[in-house]
Order: sequence, then structure tokens, then C-alpha cells
Amino acid sequence: MTDNKDKLKIIPLGGTEEVGRNCTVFEYQDQILIVDLGLGFPEEDMPGVDYIIPNTKYLQQNSEKIKGAIITHGHYDHIGAIPHVVDRLGNPPIFTGELTQKIIEKRQEDYSNVSKPDIHQVEAGDTVELGDFTVEFFNVNHNIPNSLGAVIRTPVGNVIHTGDFKFDRNPVSEDPTDIPKLASLGEEGVLALLSDSTNAEKEGFSTSETEIKENLNQIFERFEDNRLIVSTFSSLISRVQQVFDLAEKHNRKVAVDGYSMKTNVEIAKELGYLKFHKGTQIPMKKVSNYKPEDVVILATGAQGEGNAALMRIAQGNHRHIKLSKKDVVIFSSSIVPGNENTVQSLKDIIFRQGAKVIDYEMMDIHTGGHAKEEDLKMLINLVQPKYLIPVEGNYYMLKLQTELAQKMGMPKENTVILGNGDMAILDQNEIEVRENEVPSNYVFVDGLGVGDVGEIVLRDRQKMSEEGMFVVIVQVNSDSGEVEGHINIISRGFVYLEDSKDLLNDARKKIKDIVSEEAAGQQSLNWSYLKDVLRDRLGDFLYQKTHRRPMVLPVVIEV
Amino acid sequence: MTDNKDKLKIIPLGGTEEVGRNCTVFEYQDQILIVDLGLGFPEEDMPGVDYIIPNTKYLQQNSEKIKGAIITHGHYDHIGAIPHVVDRLGNPPIFTGELTQKIIEKRQEDYSNVSKPDIHQVEAGDTVELGDFTVEFFNVNHNIPNSLGAVIRTPVGNVIHTGDFKFDRNPVSEDPTDIPKLASLGEEGVLALLSDSTNAEKEGFSTSETEIKENLNQIFERFEDNRLIVSTFSSLISRVQQVFDLAEKHNRKVAVDGYSMKTNVEIAKELGYLKFHKGTQIPMKKVSNYKPEDVVILATGAQGEGNAALMRIAQGNHRHIKLSKKDVVIFSSSIVPGNENTVQSLKDIIFRQGAKVIDYEMMDIHTGGHAKEEDLKMLINLVQPKYLIPVEGNYYMLKLQTELAQKMGMPKENTVILGNGDMAILDQNEIEVRENEVPSNYVFVDGLGVGDVGEIVLRDRQKMSEEGMFVVIVQVNSDSGEVEGHINIISRGFVYLEDSKDLLNDARKKIKDIVSEEAAGQQSLNWSYLKDVLRDRLGDFLYQKTHRRPMVLPVVIEV
Repeated sequence: MTDNKDKLKIIPLGGTEEVGRNCTVFEYQDQILIVDLGLGFPEEDMPGVDYIIPNTKYLQQNSEKIKGAIITHGHYDHIGAIPHVVDRLGNPPIFTGELTQKIIEKRQEDYSNVSKPDIHQVEAGDTVELGDFTVEFFNVNHNIPNSLGAVIRTPVGNVIHTGDFKFDRNPVSEDPTDIPKLASLGEEGVLALLSDSTNAEKEGFSTSETEIKENLNQIFERFEDNRLIVSTFSSLISRVQQVFDLAEKHNRKVAVDGYSMKTNVEIAKELGYLKFHKGTQIPMKKVSNYKPEDVVILATGAQGEGNAALMRIAQGNHRHIKLSKKDVVIFSSSIVPGNENTVQSLKDIIFRQGAKVIDYEMMDIHTGGHAKEEDLKMLINLVQPKYLIPVEGNYYMLKLQTELAQKMGMPKENTVILGNGDMAILDQNEIEVRENEVPSNYVFVDGLGVGDVGEIVLRDRQKMSEEGMFVVIVQVNSDSGEVEGHINIISRGFVYLEDSKDLLNDARKKIKDIVSEEAAGQQSLNWSYLKDVLRDRLGDFLYQKTHRRPMVLPVVIEV
Repeated sequence: MTDNKDKLKIIPLGGTEEVGRNCTVFEYQDQILIVDLGLGFPEEDMPGVDYIIPNTKYLQQNSEKIKGAIITHGHYDHIGAIPHVVDRLGNPPIFTGELTQKIIEKRQEDYSNVSKPDIHQVEAGDTVELGDFTVEFFNVNHNIPNSLGAVIRTPVGNVIHTGDFKFDRNPVSEDPTDIPKLASLGEEGVLALLSDSTNAEKEGFSTSETEIKENLNQIFERFEDNRLIVSTFSSLISRVQQVFDLAEKHNRKVAVDGYSMKTNVEIAKELGYLKFHKGTQIPMKKVSNYKPEDVVILATGAQGEGNAALMRIAQGNHRHIKLSKKDVVIFSSSIVPGNENTVQSLKDIIFRQGAKVIDYEMMDIHTGGHAKEEDLKMLINLVQPKYLIPVEGNYYMLKLQTELAQKMGMPKENTVILGNGDMAILDQNEIEVRENEVPSNYVFVDGLGVGDVGEIVLRDRQKMSEEGMFVVIVQVNSDSGEVEGHINIISRGFVYLEDSKDLLNDARKKIKDIVSEEAAGQQSLNWSYLKDVLRDRLGDFLYQKTHRRPMVLPVVIEV
């Protein structure tokens, strides 16, 4: 172990076995630096869970070492864990850009019971000293403005963390990713490169936001007599900017709908990340004062979310907008895997009203914000890292990025895939990987609880959702061992009780019989045994009658 | 109504607002003909439901009119409802092809409690008289052999139902879709065309199975030193045939795995729909007797299904196969929408073992079995129907097919979209649509129950899966109105009880207080009111403590 004292440790706590929940820990001697504190969304088999956040046990055990955290940009998969972990980490200083800071602070308003995070604003070019770590920020393109990459200078060497990025040769209202900076870092020498793998499986270069704007412009031209409804993620501020630009070009007013869209437009406008003339934006309730062809509606809900603006419009539940045959609905965002069915049924609903639907499969009106194969190759060429450690992606995507690098001549042993909780220990001479060195199992957030919903609670939720539950409350006379009084049955999610009177009566009879057989005449009753027998035998009885296995929960009351 | 006496009625009971659950009813005077009796798979918000089947209420009310049913091919979305409805329909005669018959009969073995269906075997060219309906079958290509389309000759005119179909100019071991027959039907005159819309949104012609075979052949050549594991749907018999053909060409043995794959290979081979030399197929347990490069494994599980052969292989739980770096896993089927995440994580697992993954995005090794735009245009040109009624697809797909036809010059009023339960009433002069004329709401199959799981049961299941449940059993003295004895609490899926002792004790205290405030000193206790108050106030208390809303179920026992 003494050998490793002067080496750098890199530990992903999230983001390397999934897309989302990004969090990477850098440790040198008694100092820790954190990059990003993101959340992930639950899978289908985690009902009721609001978010998944990185496991911070290791950080809590070493909280005195934490010098600070840097946040690359304002998406929830990079900032979302902050309110849930800030107190557990001893509220370390957080360094991030202006827009990101505002988004973090806005979200914090929903969490009044936790400490206000200690945020320090930085911009590209700034340098921050955090113990032996010297962090310098540089500009990258992503699909939210104010995205930053970072070079972390350590006594062992320089490490680059790209955050989410792509090379946009012609971005909309921001500077391109700082290629000269990356080139000069390459000359300075880069020990390790941690880079975005989300689109590593996609061939070619990433599409520029400017191309998208061209395509959107064609739609504005083609449907100049129609009302346009553009739906996208509220965090895609550059897409939002394009819609405002095109609205002004085509003499339309913009009405913004959906809580998160309104909030983000407000913040981004206030900070100057979103620019449009006074008067271009109109309130939703004034939409009917304008001719349909003079209006663009910008709405959330392109993923088919049940309560979002677009779904309310489609279902006719919107206060101010009613769909008509003259409406054109533009889905300007790719479908998040898993949402395909929901999006399809949203399109069905829109089609039924006679409105037109244009989606990104018909025209490239969405681009991802992540580097594709050719971008990644360019990055590797620029920075010439000794080690490549892909982050932000499923194993599959990480692996593809290492294969890319190997094809470019990097030695295989210098391309390293870390799972969540793995630890890389490295210096200029060698890199060692220790698997599962640090706890990294999921931490679930559900309501106010962080980490209190575990496997058992989830298993119960699944079981009840599949087959329902069946509670029986039976009073047993401790002398006679016979049932007394009425047997209460509470069942939910199993059968419709109104239509199942016979089954319930049969079940009551069965319960009486079981108790009688097991308990009557016994000298001293084993109540816990009786409960077990009731659960098993009643479960079998219900299965035989219905071929379903509800969760059977007997309560035996001694009278 | 008397006006409609001599008209034909067409009623889709399923398949026109979804992909799956196909079932269409044709009614003329006192005679009914059914085409297909398929099942659909449940959506995410239908936990525990096994299948969805068409609502047969209308057919049950008119069961004496039913002359028979025809089944176009052996996929579950066309045959799957048969065991669940055969008795409700009075076991009408079913007409279908040889392979389809065997598949229906095989599935029937799982349903010993229902009548054996009365199946009559037909083949392309056969004609069956069913009252005033004269049904003639013709050959179509799909991705299962023995697929049939039908022309139904009625006193009002000829109606064509394509079933699932595509035009394959060069199919694998079967005849192409019968174009001369379609052309001659066009000359004879076609009143209405009901045609497959599943791929109506896809441009171009459908890919021939022969092209797929070419691509698969390249993979066999490129990886001649590797073991190959090909995963596809077990119902894609023509794909299975290709794998056997290529194995023989490249001197490999084939081992088949997965229950449904083994069953289908057996049935198809017995009937001659699958042809290979004796000795090409080897039992799974003999695989280790051969060199890896001399073997192909054909497995189910390309959708990432948890218990399928491929998942067991990937997870190292397979008795005979262990993945190695020399294995190449080929996903030869498209991803069913909704399964993207599961498939991605299956690929991750395979990648981790070092095996290669080849999927249809990298190479066209899957083709759909459904007509694309150009096929549909060709069909419409051939049969020149007076009315077009698209079936088999979401509204969106049906609509796109009508738009295609309109672009080809069909009058808009002659292209008709029917929802499930809508009724078209037509003759040579006019077509009228009556919406929601017939019950078509979902019928859920869960275990032995058909239709007994309804909205209420599903809502309860969802609620419990999101937030859990909280049952309290409290004994109240009817004289004093105070709680007596211990308060039993049963909670599942809410909080982990072991870690929540304080919460439970606080809840018990709260319950005592509520009962005391509401009941103590009351002259006559209103038990039902007390339960309601307990539920509401305890629910609020738990929400305040946890920000979760479990289903609170109080049981008050009078002592």
C-alpha cells in the first residue's frame, strides 16, 4: 500500500454502467476532488422510486479529505444528487458556471430542509486551487449552454474530464469547444483522459446545432400558414434559442408552456444565455389573440410524459390551446430509450385531432449533445493521453470507445474500463485497477427518504403490483383454538371484490378449517406457526382457484 | 336500419389501435365471419396482466350467427386469444393452414380446461363456404411460413384481408406472395381491401429474406474461427431455415436452445417447413464435443427476456454453454419497442465476457415481415379496391396508409380508418362509419381469470407498487371508544420496517389519539366514519413524515 501513496486514485461512483448519475472521485494522498453529482432515473423494476443517486458512503467516511466538487453543466444527471448529499458530504465548496449555478439554486428551492450549497462561480479560463489539485476550466459544446470541461493538474500528472461534450464547428450563440486549449494540453502532457461515451457507438461527426436550425427553418417555411407547436427538452436551451430566432425571422410570437420550460427560459434569459426581442414572447393566455400562423408554441412533453404541456394539448385538457387540423407538432428531441411506446401513443392522439406530426426520423431536427466516433478520435489525437478512461455510458459504450482508441494505436493496457466503485491507481509508469473497491450499489430517493428504500421494499412493491395482496384478520380463541367472530379480509390488486363474493366466502371457510385443524385442541398455541401455516395453505388455495399468487398476510388476534 | 339490411358490416375488435390483438368481424344479415383471434401484450401500466385479448361481448351476444373463423398465420397476435374465447363463442369451426393448426394445437396443451378447437385445415387455393361468405385463401409472404391472405366473397362484393404480409421477390423456401391472384381479384372487382399497416411508415420496399441470408453468410465467413450464437424470435421459421442452410454450407452443427425455439423447430421440421440434413442438428449437451468453430447455437432471447436461453448464456447460468472471447453473438431480430433498455443491458453483459455482438443496426440481418410503403402501393394498384380499410397498426400507421392511397388518387371518403369497436356499413354505393358501435374495451387475462381484472384492480396494483400499503388493525372498546390492546400494523413496499421502529411507534400513538378524539365519549359509534377518518388522518401523518402516500387500510374491530 505504501507504494501507492504518491499515486492518483480515480473512482467513478456513477455514470460508468449507465447513462446518467454521473459522479467521479479523484483522490491524491489525503485530498479528494469530486466531479459532478448527478442523478439517474429508476428502471421499470423500481416502482415508486423518484431517483437513483450515487452511493456516497466512501465519501462520507472520508469527508474530511474533500476539498471541493466541480460541476460540468446544468443537466440533472450532473447536478441532481446535490440536495440529497450536500449535508452528508459536509457541504463542500462547489465550483461551476453561472447558468449551472442558477439551475442548481432553482432546484434547491424544492429542498428547504437541507443546507444551501456553497457555490463558487467560475468561467472558462478560470483556475481554482483545491489542495494539490489545480483545476482549470475550458469551454465545451453540449446541448445546454455554459458547459465546461476541466483539466485537473495533480502532482502525478494532468487529467482531463470532458464532461458531456461534442465538437460543434458552428454552434448556436456560443463558442466552439476550445480546440486550441485541448491542443496545448496535449503538448503539456496528459496523464489520463476521462471522456464522454454516450454516443461512442454512433458513426461520423456530431451534427451542428446550426444544421438543425436550417432544417427547422425549412419547416417554418413549408408550414407558413399553420400554427407550429415545437416540443423539446426544457434543458435544450440552444434549441429554444433557435425557435426564438426563427420565430423572429418569420414574424411569429412565441408562447412558452410547461413549468420547467418556463423556468429555464426565464433563467437563461436573465443571464443572457437566451436572447430575443422584447415582445417576441407572449403569455400563453394571449395566444388566442393572434392568428394561428403568427404563433409558435414551445412546450415540454416530447417524451409523452403524462402531465406535460404537449400531452395536455393533445388530450384537449389545455386551458388555452385546442389542437386543430391546421396545427403542426414538431418533436425536436430524440426518444429516451424506454419511452417509445408512450411517444407512439402521444402521436396517435395528435393524429386523431387531424394535426400533422414531424419528428426527428423524418428530418434531422434533433441532434444529440454528445461526441460521436469521429469527435472522439479527434479528441484523442489532440490530447494524446497516456491513459484513456471512458466515462458516461453503459459498459458497451465505454468498451467501444476503448476499441476506437486501440485502433488509433493506443496500447490496450492503457485503455481502462472502470465500473462504478472500481478504483484506478495510477502514475506516469503504470495503472492498476481494483474492482469493487468502494461501495457503489444504488441509493434510491423516494419522497423524503434517501437510501431507506432497499431491495426488500422494492421486491414487495413488485410482488404486490403483479398479483396484489390478501390480508386476513382472524380472531382465535386461545382456549378452544377455534375462530371467533367475523373474519376480516382486505384484498387489493388481486380480484375485484364485488364480483368475488363466492371466492371470499370459500376463503373464509378454508381459514376456519385450517385454524381448526392446526389449533383446536392444542395445549399451548404456537401463534407464529399458525400464521405461517395460514399464509402457505391459504396461498395455495387461492392459487388453485385463480392461478394467481397474491401476497398473503395473516393477522391472528388472540381472544 | 332496414336500409342496412343488405349491407356488409365490418367491425375490428382489435388490432386497429395497436400492433397486436388482431381480430376483425364481418357480418352480413344473420351471418358472422371472424378473421384472426389474437392477443396483445400488456403495457407498463398493467402490472401482473398476462395478455390482453379482444372484447368478445358482441360475438357472444350473437354467437348463433357465427359461421366460422379463419386464422391467417401462426403468430400469437393472430391465434393467442383462441383458448380464452373458444367456449364463449360456442366453439365455431376454425379454418387455417397446416403449420398454423399445429401451433394452435401445441399451445392448446397449456389449456386443458377448455374445449378443443374445431380446426379445419386449408391451403392456398382452397375455398370454404360459410353461409353467404365464400372464403378463398391465397399465399402471402410473412416471416412465418404458411401465411395466408383471404378473399371473402359476399353478396355485396369481394373483400380482401391480407393478414400480415409483404412482397418478397425472392423468399427463402416458399413461394412469393401470389401476385397473379391479386391481379385477377383486381379484375374481378374488390369492394374493400383490409391491409397490414405495421410498416406503413417505412419507406421503400421490404427487404427480402434472401438479402438477409447474404448478410448472415458474410458473418459466417468473417468469423469462421469463432463460435456463433444466433438469437432471433422462435416464430421466425424462415430465419431459422437460413441458419440451418448456412451451417450446412459452412460445415457447422446447429444446437437449438430455448423451449419455444425447440418446439417450433420440431413442429416445422415435422411438417416440412424446415429442411435440413439428418445430423446437422445436435443436442445442446453435446456442444462441448465439438470445436467452437464447428458449432452454431440458435437461441431465443434477443429481446433480453430474463429467462430466455441467451440471457442464461450471458449470465453464466447455462448448463452447457459458457461465453468466451471467441464467441460472436448475433441479434437477428429488431427490438420490440419498450425493450430497448433490457436489450442494452443484455449486450453489456455479453460484452463483459469479452464476446462480440453483432446487431441489426450494424448490418441488415433482420427484416420485418410487413409491407412497406412501396409494397402497399403495389398492392393497391393490383387490387384496385373501392374502399381501403387499413388494419394491424396504431392509428398513426393506419392514417399513413390512407394518405398513401389518397396520393395514388383514391377519393378520401373511400379510405376509412376504423378504431376497435367501430362499425363500417358498406355496399357498392356507400360506406358509413359508426364509432364505438360495439364494446371493445380491453379484456385482461391474468392466470385463470379472463376479464375479471379490471381498472380498479389495476389501479390498486399501481398504487401499491408506487408507494406500498399500510394496514392497521385496531381494537376499539365500543363502550369507552378507546383503543384496547396492541395495534397491529402490516406494511409492505412503504418503508423497511426494521429500520422504521420510531415511525411505527409514532404511528401507533397517532392512531390512539385519532380514535380517542373521534370516538371516546360518543354515544353510538359510527364505525365506518371512524375508519374513514383514520385512513385520511393517518395518511396525512405518514405523508408529512415521509412524503410518501401508501395505501392506508384501517381495520377497526369492536371489542
